[in-house]
Amino acid sequence: MSRVVPAGARRIAEVRLTPVLVCDPPLLNVQGVHQPYTPRLIVEVVTDEGVTGVGETYGDTPYLELARPYAGALLGHELADLNGLFTSMNLIDVDESRIDDSVDVGGLRGVQTADKLRLSVVSAFEVACLDALGKTGGVPVHTLLGGKVRDAVDYSAYLFYRWAEHPGGAGEKDSWGAALDPAGIVEQARRFVREYGFRSFKLKGGVFPPEQEVAAVRALAAAFPGHPLRLDPNGGWTPGTSLRVAAELADVLEYLEDPAPGTAAMAEVSRGTSVPLATNMCVTTFPEIREAFLSDAVQVVLSDHHYWGGLRNTRELAAICRVFGVGLSMHSNTHLGISLAAMTHVAATVPNLDHACDSHYPWQTEDVITVRHEFRDGRLAVSDAPGLGVELDRTELARLHRRWLDDDGTLRDRDDAAAMRRAPEHADWTAPALPRW
Amino acid sequence: MSRVVPAGARRIAEVRLTPVLVCDPPLLNVQGVHQPYTPRLIVEVVTDEGVTGVGETYGDTPYLELARPYAGALLGHELADLNGLFTSMNLIDVDESRIDDSVDVGGLRGVQTADKLRLSVVSAFEVACLDALGKTGGVPVHTLLGGKVRDAVDYSAYLFYRWAEHPGGAGEKDSWGAALDPAGIVEQARRFVREYGFRSFKLKGGVFPPEQEVAAVRALAAAFPGHPLRLDPNGGWTPGTSLRVAAELADVLEYLEDPAPGTAAMAEVSRGTSVPLATNMCVTTFPEIREAFLSDAVQVVLSDHHYWGGLRNTRELAAICRVFGVGLSMHSNTHLGISLAAMTHVAATVPNLDHACDSHYPWQTEDVITVRHEFRDGRLAVSDAPGLGVELDRTELARLHRRWLDDDGTLRDRDDAAAMRRAPEHADWTAPALPRW
Repeated sequence: MSRVVPAGARRIAEVRLTPVLVCDPPLLNVQGVHQPYTPRLIVEVVTDEGVTGVGETYGDTPYLELARPYAGALLGHELADLNGLFTSMNLIDVDESRIDDSVDVGGLRGVQTADKLRLSVVSAFEVACLDALGKTGGVPVHTLLGGKVRDAVDYSAYLFYRWAEHPGGAGEKDSWGAALDPAGIVEQARRFVREYGFRSFKLKGGVFPPEQEVAAVRALAAAFPGHPLRLDPNGGWTPGTSLRVAAELADVLEYLEDPAPGTAAMAEVSRGTSVPLATNMCVTTFPEIREAFLSDAVQVVLSDHHYWGGLRNTRELAAICRVFGVGLSMHSNTHLGISLAAMTHVAATVPNLDHACDSHYPWQTEDVITVRHEFRDGRLAVSDAPGLGVELDRTELARLHRRWLDDDGTLRDRDDAAAMRRAPEHADWTAPALPRW
Repeated sequence: MSRVVPAGARRIAEVRLTPVLVCDPPLLNVQGVHQPYTPRLIVEVVTDEGVTGVGETYGDTPYLELARPYAGALLGHELADLNGLFTSMNLIDVDESRIDDSVDVGGLRGVQTADKLRLSVVSAFEVACLDALGKTGGVPVHTLLGGKVRDAVDYSAYLFYRWAEHPGGAGEKDSWGAALDPAGIVEQARRFVREYGFRSFKLKGGVFPPEQEVAAVRALAAAFPGHPLRLDPNGGWTPGTSLRVAAELADVLEYLEDPAPGTAAMAEVSRGTSVPLATNMCVTTFPEIREAFLSDAVQVVLSDHHYWGGLRNTRELAAICRVFGVGLSMHSNTHLGISLAAMTHVAATVPNLDHACDSHYPWQTEDVITVRHEFRDGRLAVSDAPGLGVELDRTELARLHRRWLDDDGTLRDRDDAAAMRRAPEHADWTAPALPRW
């Protein structure tokens, strides 16, 4: 029997939620260090015809607590009723008192609101529904978004200061070694180029005093002349520091990402430099757009389809950016191949994707899909297979879920500051108030 | 054989363009009077599987001249590649020197640009593709837009000053009679309520000196206390006149539509009144949004899916309005049942549809679909049939096309001022420079 049936007639018959812990290297940021394992939530939507669609989002407890009643509410939901996903979510109660720093990792994920939490959960279900719709109709997800306007999507090398291994040798080992100075960053970049062909480079900053990070960017510029470079201290600097860095690196920066915390500080920086400012911290929800755009606080929005409520909302964000002459690219947090597929599909359909997208994916050695994505020449080919074009590896999914089940609770909510304190030399670490420098 | 196949695999095998002249009553506006017959273009897209989708747009010569090469360029185009419709259109040359007042009816359709002309043509093809996609996949168009969020769409009664018949008795007769004073407008409104159940009322103004139109609105308010009322002089007033009218009608107006011409004048009016201002003249394209929103010139955008490039672009406009706290409703020009179906589908999917939509449809006694839409309680039920849910009446289509073929060219480009001059008492009429009062 052909699986091709009217997509609109299909309903959600079952939802499976599988929280996992996925290994993550000791990547440093302004808040601390990545945990040895990071929580993610895998969502499977099964239609009444037995077609399964998959999605992925943040896996911290508040997301899980919201995903569970939502999954129940969606049983019987028409698969193609994507607008209705939001209506249904808005009926789910969110305990606002639970929305605290544990949700947004000390500010790294931007503002915390109940709506944003809802959208982050909806995003995984929307992607899963699109995947199932695509499989049902025999078309790729990009077709459901109106069709790709490019056949491959550019990604950037996401460089991190990092330790060679997690404190106490926790977690999985890798061969990257430490990168704690300009030479280490350049070496890391060279490997990224060798293995994946990336042509843009983003350095996660906010780890060391600004002058050290300026030196690292200078070293990158010397090693890769003419290549687009970005520096992202996650709001770690004052406007004054931001302007100093911008002046020092103006000749080599593609953009400066979230140098200072908050729209007002970003606007202050923006007024004082011609270096474009990008953000995935002060514009992470629709209500934040107006003030930021009116004050010209940012010139590039780094969309994250999880924050924004899925792929269709990401396209709406892109439309808004087009109208206001604001650039668009994509943000990434630790994620697996389902979300990378989703990012790539929507990126393929957005005409004004002005910069190479970020992705942590090369750092993720584990995945829940059967065939890993492969970057070639710094790009991912856009899949034309039905749905997302990925298949769940149920053995791996079970293994990573088992890890989540076996965790005593310490890793189920990502806390980079707590992870930092596990290093004896940082036993007194607390996430710094921003700006730090 | 089932017609349900992968929509993405289908291609456009044939395009049929049928210009028609559709009868139109002698409705008055600031520019003149509607012609006895108005040009529209009916677009049929036929897939390689023989499924036909229909769309409709403006039928004036510049639209036809652009639609013809575009239709040729789309042969072989993937039906589901809706984003690609824009890419393909942008490859078609537009003779900018042909873009003049004849296109936009003396300003009634807002700014004239090559891009807007392109989008107005694309809109008919996009709707036709959506219709064909829906029929192919067995789902209504609203499902292809993410799903309806309401089961019926509110429309307003579109009241016009009008003559009993066209000059010299041209065109078709109707039973509405003249409406040239407050009593006539109220009588017209009563019939609209009786026949269609409308609960909102819009009066097309700019025809008589403002005090007469204020009196008509006052008469409506007395006849229909508490019902939303709107007045639209199509930019016919100075900011000073606009503010005087706003002050006089502040207690009964839902909004004032395009009182003054252009964003700057609208902003000036906006600063002086708390009556919301709506527009379908100063914000009719994406590039016009920024200035209008930044200057708070308008509080309601009246979308017209023809101007904006189709139903998906209309949804993007809605998203932009949501973010900037600007209301949304829909504009109408003389149109047939295909466009009304399209409007209703997209309106059903937009959460922030804040006001009843406009439609000329009750004035159109001819149509090219087999079953006319019926307003009940001022609303149209949203069709759940595959595609738009309308079927072409080929006999009527041929008859109205024959009328277009038989026309000597005088009616193929709508010109309300020329139509006005056909009345002996207005033989010297020229469309007034705006603002008139």
